[in-house]
Amino acid sequence: MSEEKQKKLEKSNESTVLIGKKPIMNYVIACLTFFNSGAKKVMIKARGRAISRAVDTVELLRRAFIKDLQLQDITIGTEEVTRSNGQKTNVSIIEITVTRP
Amino acid sequence: MSEEKQKKLEKSNESTVLIGKKPIMNYVIACLTFFNSGAKKVMIKARGRAISRAVDTVELLRRAFIKDLQLQDITIGTEEVTRSNGQKTNVSIIEITVTRP
Repeated sequence: MSEEKQKKLEKSNESTVLIGKKPIMNYVIACLTFFNSGAKKVMIKARGRAISRAVDTVELLRRAFIKDLQLQDITIGTEEVTRSNGQKTNVSIIEITVTRP
Repeated sequence: MSEEKQKKLEKSNESTVLIGKKPIMNYVIACLTFFNSGAKKVMIKARGRAISRAVDTVELLRRAFIKDLQLQDITIGTEEVTRSNGQKTNVSIIEITVTRP
């Protein structure tokens, strides 16, 4: 992400939910908590196999909780990760930004 | 590829690669084949746990094969699927459209 975008991001009251291996509902609740505490934007980030869970989270949030949720942006990319044995591998990432009007 | 298929392809100028459980390289090659046979746009579709593999495919294609690949659009959504026991469940989907200049 460019520095400019990063600054813009911090300025605009954005909150981030990082998707891991917990039940999807946990991440949905995390998003809801951000929105209920006044956030206008929430960014959902995931990498590797958690990417599909990020999409699940957004879809469940939209279908079941915030009907007028808007998808502002979806970006994909690659991050280099160093494993415990020192080997470097590439892992795909996704960042989904959602807003509520 | 048949002549008819080739014509249809040129007409719509869009080709679709559906991501399943095969090695990611297979899907990268499928995309390359479409581009090499004249397609300007390729759509990569996946659902459920294959979503992360769709992102992997695009990233590998961009990193290793087509440096100037452009992401035209990423959409996410939900599809209703009927299982073999008649139960209906929702599954997330992703559609990534890439173009080469």
